[in-house]
Amino acid sequence: MTKYVYLFKEADGSNKALFGGKGANLAEMTKLGMPVPQGFTITTEACTKYYADGKKISQEVIDQIFAKLAELEAETGKKFGDSENPFLVSVRSGARASMPGMMDTILNLGLNDVSVEGLAKLTNNPRFAYDCYRRFIQMYSDVVIGIGKNFFEKIIDEIKERKGVKLDTELTADDLKELIERYKAFYLQEQGKDFPQDPKVQLIGAVEAVFRSWDNPRAIVYRRMNNIPGDWGTAVNVQSMVFGNMGETSGTGVAFTRNPSNGDKNLYGEYLMNAQGEDVVAGIRTPSPISHLKETNPEVYAQFVEISSKLERYFKDMQDMEFTIERGKLYMLQTRNGKRTALSAINVAVDLVKEGLCTEEEALLKIEPKQLDDLLHPQFDAKEIKKHKPIAEGLPASPGAACGKIAFSAEEATERAANGEDVILVRLETSPEDIEGMNVAKGILTARGGLTSHAAVVARGMGRCCVSGCGELVIDEEGRTVTIKGVKYTDQDYISIDGSTGNIYAGTLPMIVPQISGNFKTIMDWANKYRVLKVRTNADTPHDAKTAYDFGAEGIGLCRTEHMFFEKTRIAAVREMILAKTVEQRKAALAKILPMQKNDFIALYKEMHGYPVTIRFLDPPLHEFLPQKEEEIAELSKEMKISVEEIKNTIAALHEFNPMMGHRGCRLAVTYPEIAEMQTRAVIEAAIAVNKDGGNVKAEIMIPLVGEVKELRYVKSVVVETAEKVMEEAGVKVEYSVGTMIEIPRAAITADQIATEAEFFSFGTNDLTQMTFGFSRDDAGKFLGSYYEKKIYESDPFARLDQTGVGELVRIAAEKGKSTRPAIKLGICGEHGGDPSTIEFCHNIGLTYVSCSPFRVPIAILAAAHANIKNPRK
Amino acid sequence: MTKYVYLFKEADGSNKALFGGKGANLAEMTKLGMPVPQGFTITTEACTKYYADGKKISQEVIDQIFAKLAELEAETGKKFGDSENPFLVSVRSGARASMPGMMDTILNLGLNDVSVEGLAKLTNNPRFAYDCYRRFIQMYSDVVIGIGKNFFEKIIDEIKERKGVKLDTELTADDLKELIERYKAFYLQEQGKDFPQDPKVQLIGAVEAVFRSWDNPRAIVYRRMNNIPGDWGTAVNVQSMVFGNMGETSGTGVAFTRNPSNGDKNLYGEYLMNAQGEDVVAGIRTPSPISHLKETNPEVYAQFVEISSKLERYFKDMQDMEFTIERGKLYMLQTRNGKRTALSAINVAVDLVKEGLCTEEEALLKIEPKQLDDLLHPQFDAKEIKKHKPIAEGLPASPGAACGKIAFSAEEATERAANGEDVILVRLETSPEDIEGMNVAKGILTARGGLTSHAAVVARGMGRCCVSGCGELVIDEEGRTVTIKGVKYTDQDYISIDGSTGNIYAGTLPMIVPQISGNFKTIMDWANKYRVLKVRTNADTPHDAKTAYDFGAEGIGLCRTEHMFFEKTRIAAVREMILAKTVEQRKAALAKILPMQKNDFIALYKEMHGYPVTIRFLDPPLHEFLPQKEEEIAELSKEMKISVEEIKNTIAALHEFNPMMGHRGCRLAVTYPEIAEMQTRAVIEAAIAVNKDGGNVKAEIMIPLVGEVKELRYVKSVVVETAEKVMEEAGVKVEYSVGTMIEIPRAAITADQIATEAEFFSFGTNDLTQMTFGFSRDDAGKFLGSYYEKKIYESDPFARLDQTGVGELVRIAAEKGKSTRPAIKLGICGEHGGDPSTIEFCHNIGLTYVSCSPFRVPIAILAAAHANIKNPRK
Repeated sequence: MTKYVYLFKEADGSNKALFGGKGANLAEMTKLGMPVPQGFTITTEACTKYYADGKKISQEVIDQIFAKLAELEAETGKKFGDSENPFLVSVRSGARASMPGMMDTILNLGLNDVSVEGLAKLTNNPRFAYDCYRRFIQMYSDVVIGIGKNFFEKIIDEIKERKGVKLDTELTADDLKELIERYKAFYLQEQGKDFPQDPKVQLIGAVEAVFRSWDNPRAIVYRRMNNIPGDWGTAVNVQSMVFGNMGETSGTGVAFTRNPSNGDKNLYGEYLMNAQGEDVVAGIRTPSPISHLKETNPEVYAQFVEISSKLERYFKDMQDMEFTIERGKLYMLQTRNGKRTALSAINVAVDLVKEGLCTEEEALLKIEPKQLDDLLHPQFDAKEIKKHKPIAEGLPASPGAACGKIAFSAEEATERAANGEDVILVRLETSPEDIEGMNVAKGILTARGGLTSHAAVVARGMGRCCVSGCGELVIDEEGRTVTIKGVKYTDQDYISIDGSTGNIYAGTLPMIVPQISGNFKTIMDWANKYRVLKVRTNADTPHDAKTAYDFGAEGIGLCRTEHMFFEKTRIAAVREMILAKTVEQRKAALAKILPMQKNDFIALYKEMHGYPVTIRFLDPPLHEFLPQKEEEIAELSKEMKISVEEIKNTIAALHEFNPMMGHRGCRLAVTYPEIAEMQTRAVIEAAIAVNKDGGNVKAEIMIPLVGEVKELRYVKSVVVETAEKVMEEAGVKVEYSVGTMIEIPRAAITADQIATEAEFFSFGTNDLTQMTFGFSRDDAGKFLGSYYEKKIYESDPFARLDQTGVGELVRIAAEKGKSTRPAIKLGICGEHGGDPSTIEFCHNIGLTYVSCSPFRVPIAILAAAHANIKNPRK
Repeated sequence: MTKYVYLFKEADGSNKALFGGKGANLAEMTKLGMPVPQGFTITTEACTKYYADGKKISQEVIDQIFAKLAELEAETGKKFGDSENPFLVSVRSGARASMPGMMDTILNLGLNDVSVEGLAKLTNNPRFAYDCYRRFIQMYSDVVIGIGKNFFEKIIDEIKERKGVKLDTELTADDLKELIERYKAFYLQEQGKDFPQDPKVQLIGAVEAVFRSWDNPRAIVYRRMNNIPGDWGTAVNVQSMVFGNMGETSGTGVAFTRNPSNGDKNLYGEYLMNAQGEDVVAGIRTPSPISHLKETNPEVYAQFVEISSKLERYFKDMQDMEFTIERGKLYMLQTRNGKRTALSAINVAVDLVKEGLCTEEEALLKIEPKQLDDLLHPQFDAKEIKKHKPIAEGLPASPGAACGKIAFSAEEATERAANGEDVILVRLETSPEDIEGMNVAKGILTARGGLTSHAAVVARGMGRCCVSGCGELVIDEEGRTVTIKGVKYTDQDYISIDGSTGNIYAGTLPMIVPQISGNFKTIMDWANKYRVLKVRTNADTPHDAKTAYDFGAEGIGLCRTEHMFFEKTRIAAVREMILAKTVEQRKAALAKILPMQKNDFIALYKEMHGYPVTIRFLDPPLHEFLPQKEEEIAELSKEMKISVEEIKNTIAALHEFNPMMGHRGCRLAVTYPEIAEMQTRAVIEAAIAVNKDGGNVKAEIMIPLVGEVKELRYVKSVVVETAEKVMEEAGVKVEYSVGTMIEIPRAAITADQIATEAEFFSFGTNDLTQMTFGFSRDDAGKFLGSYYEKKIYESDPFARLDQTGVGELVRIAAEKGKSTRPAIKLGICGEHGGDPSTIEFCHNIGLTYVSCSPFRVPIAILAAAHANIKNPRK
């Protein structure tokens, strides 16, 4: 028989997969002898069983829950539903990976008409007891039954109005008793049956609700954004209630062992006296900094400091803890490795090594590669910023800088961002429903909430810049304005926010790219030490190449020559080439492009200082270079002295039903070998020129869209003949190689044959993903929504390599390629090259390098180090 | 050291791969003691070496050729270039597979200014010798050097004019001597050097020319049409010349051991006295039937009959032989298994078994499955034909019937056929350059040439209907008319030709589909006995289903439901469904389609008499069902009472960049599950209805375009829920299964996962080919020409399965599918399902069935038998 329910003291704290993060750490803290309200964890297996059984909780699990409940009752001497000493519990989700705020929590469970009196007696505080009960009815109805909170709020408002009071706290015990009766009546009316009085019924209802919440839409979105598999399921933690709201000697708070914004080694947190935990997180009242606790409750503070320090040493990482003080006694409700900004992550990692708490490798693993993105994001230019006066100040909730127009809701932000607008999401406070809007906004600004409010926590997790708790904002959602110190801003006004200082500015401010220095550099040095996978960049311009080189790129993995073709000064010659009627005309037009391409390559070679530069030959279908609009066609007609009709005929002749699968890539070089000749000449002549100035160019010519070895053999023969001719003309040799992109399934399947010609493979996983899935990225939007909704896909295959399908083709191709050319160089140049999970995959299957956009280079370097630390390459 | 050159008596006649068909059989005949002019064969390996060495014949090969030449000279007592007893040879190609007329031949090689005198003395016929020499110069200049024949023809014409004669034969020995001088002068002028006098130089030049001709454009086209690999290369046969043109006791001819048109067991052939072989094949003079030889040369005839019969018994197949009579002595120049019509193939095969010459399995292997196509081609309706009087009569050169408009050249035929016209190619005579035009024409009609003329041989090989040698045709190519008995026909006039009778009719005649009976039935019975692969059909209509069932289909492998959606009476409801704004509206529209679909399926089930029927759910993107033209949109707007603007908006919203990779297939069912519900209901309700009438329906529901198991799981759950509901409503059960098409590379790669849900796989190799190659069939036309020209592709991957790439995915998927569901049913339903080489592949990798168009069913049955005879399935 499978054991589905474990007391905290029975559970194995190292098994997060089974007990979830929260449950595992409660077990650990229990074992460390810390003051943890006891309880039990229902395993993630029970959750997956719930789904496997068709969303039904089995009798087996129920029996085990009740058995553990009985044990707990015996231990605490309290009893479920008791009129003297009632046992009350919280029911919380706890997944393997932290998903803050995504799933449901129920507090005060166990209250009913009888036990509420027990609680009143026990606490000698009937008002408190009734307030707990009415909150429980409200929360249970919302979370378990699905009756919206607003119905209950309406009832409260009615009573407050009748009583002539404004705040909930002004209601008396009797008012609350009346409220409870009205709540229950409303429940009966809505549900056709009484609010459940049996605490066991309540408990199972709550457990099922938590299981269900694993699959609520916002949790699904969060998982997709964070690559958490949908089949992991959540554990459920049932824990004895302790009360932070039992008066002024009670309280609740959250704290980090180090500063999650910058990594400083100081206890960092907030607390509220006479409050429950949700009040702190919700950001409705503004809490006090944790340091105040030292003055008001020195003993509790000392105990908390000791526990904090012990936890940090035990887990060898910065901790994020929740605690409650019940009538002067400290209880630890949760600890976990704290989410932190990239800056903090880097500083903490370096400090932990300095402090001897962990090794360099362990320290590297504590930094999420993706997070580095934040450090690479532009910041406001420090010199410029001095010239501007902030219009307001908030809390520096998540670092980085952002400029954008004001959006008033998450939906609006999503819509406007999709239309290419930069927006700042401005909200009174954020809630889990806002997650998608927060993700697409450039920054988030809230009027309410502290550094641990929802907005702050989520923004830091996303690497999105955030300023929270700016009380000076007066938001008029309906009027669509924000008033700050008397000045009105509309949805068309730009504002700029600095998440590192909390400052808010009107208009847009200039930004700069940060440098890699200090602890960031230390981390990069370590990462370079522990990785074997090389990191290159995708760059078409000298500017991008320089940025990437400065970030540590070891070459260019993909230079898309067609981007150069589109430049205004060149497009005329390109169009002349396309409109050419004979090979001679085409060659004449190409001759005009040659010197420009050559100069492009010279500049790129120089920026790469002897690292290899991979140049992909012309790839897109030719019609992309021709104008579509009438006036542009007319202009071109004048310019080229070709009739409008003829140009239109050419455009019509080049029309394709499926351009993605049309006349492009090496197919262009097969039909018009003179294009490949020109490009080869540019590559080789540029190399000769740079070498003459002391350079040491390694040119890699990459033939795109190859699906058959004979295709590559043909184009390669054109390249090699031309290259040899150019070198003979110049009387010097340069180092160059010829390889191919593997981006067509057939190329992967026949990679052993292709490798007999290709000196390197570069996996073009963008196109390979499209062809392997059989859907075009441009068209998939029409159905991908349904696919996410129905949980058919859990992540965007264009952002994260589909390792099962596309990845298997990559693996097959790598293996086959090596079988006929053991020394073949293998790289990846699709956008996936900057995705850490894909980089780990590339390391594991033995690729030589990954290539990514310049700003992703440090991320890729760290991810490559992670991959080799986890699975050292022999 | 590799041996590249073998005397006929040294060669291994069973090794056609090395010696080519002609060389191998010359070796066999030599061993059988038949009168074969001796010579040697240069192997196919020498040809592939020639290409590998960059189109250069190596010294090694040259040395071996000269060594064998010396042996031959010693043996015959003749000497190359000798003034007394000159050694003359023919140089002919001889590939592994017969490629008649595709490559080059040079006769009379060895003649020069000296040896021509030797020949004159030896034959005592100077005119003959000079004629040989001038022919040789002409042929050599054309084939080896590339100086067109027309230049030489001009010189002849000049001399004839000056002499006042009309025919070549009227020129005297002196005239010919002058001609030779002028030829040589012209050669010198063109080439800047003398016509080669050294026979050894001539020989190597000729050998190289034959090697080169392996890669001439018409040979490449022929190979692509006949699936002959481009890397096989050709052998070269150098053989002592014998002369059929040494006067009236000499002659030359070709003959078959049985009738190649109908298989009758009679010697069948033609000969010409005082002629060289080329004269018979070229069709310029009309030859006599072989039976005449009995009267004119009874001894030679008896000898030839004996040899024929011996060859047929030896090769166990009908032989096609070339012979020459030199001054009364018979020489055998060639024998090979005779090309024959499908009818002849079938009759010969059955007869050979009856005669005890071979087994049923051997007999089956003698019939090319593709040939059966001819027997399945429509014939003129025998009853109707009686009512029509032929306008002319020619020779029944290749059976079958055809109607079409007149085309005057191969180019014209190609162009007009590409535009969808049915054309009959009408020519004075055909030549190898015409091959592409012959292939696309419905039929071929020539004014000149016998039953073994180029037109006749090639047309039979292609299964194209042909009437040859119709002397009544007066063709005016420039005026673009054909006059028959005074009546003019233009390129816009239809004619009908009957290749089985030789009759030609004006206009079009009604045709009928033939039945399987007689020997054809015997062959089909044998094929059914020896195959294990099942054969199904792709059919959307009861008519197609019936045709296929009558031809032996064992079920429907693919019913495309969308073809039914396009029907005029239904398209309104389909459009209503697409324009629906809500699920309810969509369901209402679908409810209108339901009864029609149900009736479709009832009809199909009935025609299949209990065999399985695979129904593919809606596949094409929805925009395909909407009108594109303004007037159609206006009409639809009126019909549906929806504004034109709204319809245009819907069309615009449904627009896709790459429809091939867009919102189609099961993606439709995922977004609109109500479509799948309706189709399931139609499938099951139809089955219930047919079973009620005593049917035994096996419905197979096929979900298209699956790429991920969860996708199939979702759609399958919709199908199964609906099916169970329908059966519960009716209170009966029907047999049905749910499977998928494997047509997306990712489906093949993850087939093990997909098979956990799919009860069968059907390989949709049309789409799988597109996705695997990464090109769209609609767009590939723009570059495939270059690919064929540059020999990157040798066959159309949509006609013949690419076994290396696409086939490998099919193999992987079959293997993976079986790994998780050993009893999985595996089929193929792409157009490749009717291609014999693909069928053999499907047999070898263990598929359960192939599915093809109705008229391909007998072909598939025979191909399946071939596959199992060659490689019996355990």
